[in-house]
Amino acid sequence: MTSIVFFSVKKTAQTTRRCLSSHFKGLANSGDSGWFLCATHSPSVSLFPGARWFSRGTGARFMFRGTAGGSAAGRTRKGVLALSGAAAVTAAAAVVGFLANADHFQRAEMATRVPRAAEKTKEEEEGDIVERCRGFMSAPVTDIGVLQKRKEEMSTKMEMLIMETQAEFCKALQEVDGGTFNVDRWDRKEGGGGISCVMQDGKVFEKAGVNVSVVFGNLTEEAAKQMRSRGKVLKGKDGKLPFCAMGVSSVIHPKNPHIPTVHFNYRYFEIEEEDGTKQWWFGGGTDLTPVYVNKEDGLHFHKTLKDACDKHHPQYYPDFKKWCDRYFYIRHRGETRGIGGIFFDDLDSPNQEEAFNFVKSCARTVVPCYLPIVYKHLNDSFTAEEKNWQQIRRGRYVEFNLVYDRGVKFGLATPGSRIESILMSLPLTATWEYMHKPAKGSREAEMMEVLRNPKEWV
Amino acid sequence: MTSIVFFSVKKTAQTTRRCLSSHFKGLANSGDSGWFLCATHSPSVSLFPGARWFSRGTGARFMFRGTAGGSAAGRTRKGVLALSGAAAVTAAAAVVGFLANADHFQRAEMATRVPRAAEKTKEEEEGDIVERCRGFMSAPVTDIGVLQKRKEEMSTKMEMLIMETQAEFCKALQEVDGGTFNVDRWDRKEGGGGISCVMQDGKVFEKAGVNVSVVFGNLTEEAAKQMRSRGKVLKGKDGKLPFCAMGVSSVIHPKNPHIPTVHFNYRYFEIEEEDGTKQWWFGGGTDLTPVYVNKEDGLHFHKTLKDACDKHHPQYYPDFKKWCDRYFYIRHRGETRGIGGIFFDDLDSPNQEEAFNFVKSCARTVVPCYLPIVYKHLNDSFTAEEKNWQQIRRGRYVEFNLVYDRGVKFGLATPGSRIESILMSLPLTATWEYMHKPAKGSREAEMMEVLRNPKEWV
Repeated sequence: MTSIVFFSVKKTAQTTRRCLSSHFKGLANSGDSGWFLCATHSPSVSLFPGARWFSRGTGARFMFRGTAGGSAAGRTRKGVLALSGAAAVTAAAAVVGFLANADHFQRAEMATRVPRAAEKTKEEEEGDIVERCRGFMSAPVTDIGVLQKRKEEMSTKMEMLIMETQAEFCKALQEVDGGTFNVDRWDRKEGGGGISCVMQDGKVFEKAGVNVSVVFGNLTEEAAKQMRSRGKVLKGKDGKLPFCAMGVSSVIHPKNPHIPTVHFNYRYFEIEEEDGTKQWWFGGGTDLTPVYVNKEDGLHFHKTLKDACDKHHPQYYPDFKKWCDRYFYIRHRGETRGIGGIFFDDLDSPNQEEAFNFVKSCARTVVPCYLPIVYKHLNDSFTAEEKNWQQIRRGRYVEFNLVYDRGVKFGLATPGSRIESILMSLPLTATWEYMHKPAKGSREAEMMEVLRNPKEWV
Repeated sequence: MTSIVFFSVKKTAQTTRRCLSSHFKGLANSGDSGWFLCATHSPSVSLFPGARWFSRGTGARFMFRGTAGGSAAGRTRKGVLALSGAAAVTAAAAVVGFLANADHFQRAEMATRVPRAAEKTKEEEEGDIVERCRGFMSAPVTDIGVLQKRKEEMSTKMEMLIMETQAEFCKALQEVDGGTFNVDRWDRKEGGGGISCVMQDGKVFEKAGVNVSVVFGNLTEEAAKQMRSRGKVLKGKDGKLPFCAMGVSSVIHPKNPHIPTVHFNYRYFEIEEEDGTKQWWFGGGTDLTPVYVNKEDGLHFHKTLKDACDKHHPQYYPDFKKWCDRYFYIRHRGETRGIGGIFFDDLDSPNQEEAFNFVKSCARTVVPCYLPIVYKHLNDSFTAEEKNWQQIRRGRYVEFNLVYDRGVKFGLATPGSRIESILMSLPLTATWEYMHKPAKGSREAEMMEVLRNPKEWV
């Protein structure tokens, strides 16, 4: 999951688009296997040159580009810690003692100051592609001309959605942090590419990554075999199966231990068999990893997801909530990674349009799920002990991502993968203490209890 | 691999000993697969009560027991940093600026002040078992009475060797650090147990773990199948294969980035087939993971290993050096974990006694390989940048251990494993920076060059 980079269709003006349907369902079922790491042509770092791809644009709207840690001009945040380095934590935690009484319990109202998010007019959604692209963090992976021509196709709709989700989330995070995302574009030699947005060591966020990838090419039957899940063998033309895959994925690790880590990922696959049968499906999810239990936060997060799900099917939330708890489980610890959310894969019903609408609802829910929680805890003070507990939980996050996450495992095993995008999901800092055991009755023990016995939040 | 806990024969006075020969060779070949995580009965933490198991003992020799961070009474180390917490690193690194000029290049002579190690008299080696046990960190896993009775058997010789290696190494580390190891004994429900010695957040060592395990029981044919490597199918009596396995393993993460991390592991397996055929083999290795290239250290480390190997076979060092570079390879990064050392598995020639003697030479080489390097760099000052580079390298250490190490993978996948002993190998702290690239010509780039192209040190 997390910072995964997908296969997908890149449609350039030169190439006839081969867009497909799919049965990548093999990846699906009980794992987050729908993530395919792409091999990259040149993983060189380059800030996106705004004017290059956008003939009508001035690049002026890409004001957020630059290096993390930029100015938070004109904004003051009483009591918030400007930790200037991960290792400065102890010193900062000492300082925080003085700040602790300032406005510890000054709480922002849920959903306050959250940028426009969920609701868009039909016009905005189906408006001019060129116009919509202006708001992105970078040009889409697929040439804009091709997107315009293929406006009605699902791959275009999905690429626009993941680009929009990336931009919306990045901008909301930049607004709260005051820093800016670095934007890296990369190409996949075999077809497609991606856009990785990373803000590291910001004021609020220790590490924030939001990836988009759009990849395409041919799978061998052997590779496709690994990916089928429904027992269906995929038969390719001359042993090859044209496929495309795309997605947006993100992991945000804040500095303050009272602000939870969030992860989300939404993806789409198409694959074409020998007889022209096209298979497609969607996958994704959003889940929260707090360091301490906060019932109000848990309720807000799950309720927001449930509302998005309920608009589409009454079984979506209960089913996908359970799936999430099952997937983000650190087996060797006997605990979940966090307090869950939703997780689904292999979604190809009731029809393509409605499945897409559901995914769109989920993607549009990321900002309202998370940002109110960030604002609420922005000024929470914390102790060195709380920071240390966060670091221990970060260690568990690393364990899950490196040991169990199917996307990461697949990515690391794929020669030529863009490793930096895959491992972007790892926190800036983590700790492993031998035999760490929270004291009975402590807030740390309360967290462990919830991780060992996932609860119903709504 | 690293902090792995093995199967082996526990011989109690009550149980008739079933000691075997072996063909666990399946585990061997190209991986560190010879490590079997045992399920534990009660992973409870308990400092070893010296008088409990040792009827004649007073426990007085176990003076090193206690909590890490104890006094380094009577010892002064000019300029050495007493970092009181992992997160205090930045502050400490700032302080070190003042200390930098004190005695940065005051170098201890190689092999100076290293406690008695490699050479032991024949009397010591084959002396009274009860007497030898007095020097251990805890009672052996197997009952002393049984060990005395089965004195001539290989499993007894090996258990004594791993206990001695643990004690010798722990004491040498305690002497340099001033802290003390916590000693945990644990039982494996199915047979056997282990002794985990951990010193955390000491003066010199961030995290130091030295594990012994001695485990035994029955393997199913299915489990044994996973372990065969030479294409030989193991046939058990009623489908069961009695086995025993034991080993000592250790990972030491120092605080000072100029002191390298070291890892070693030596192990022995026996397994019995249906027809009474007994198969046995040894495995092990010692390898170094520096943060910066130091040719003198690399030469000393490899030369010490080569000398130990050359006493037994001229091909051992060159072959096992290559094997080590191959095994400790972080494929997705295209770099080795460190500068290697030796690594071997599946060793069952020329005969059991000589193979054991070779393993003994290797085990006795751990202290002279590593301690001189520790003493040499004890007073080296370091900058915040150097500490940060160490943290990044630690991140890679975590990646190797969680993604590739076959012992860890096997352990995590085995229900009931003693997770804390398996993951003891992880550093106290680690960092992941997105797109970190050492500057051209820097000492960090020099390290990367060596990790990308393993060199011949001797």
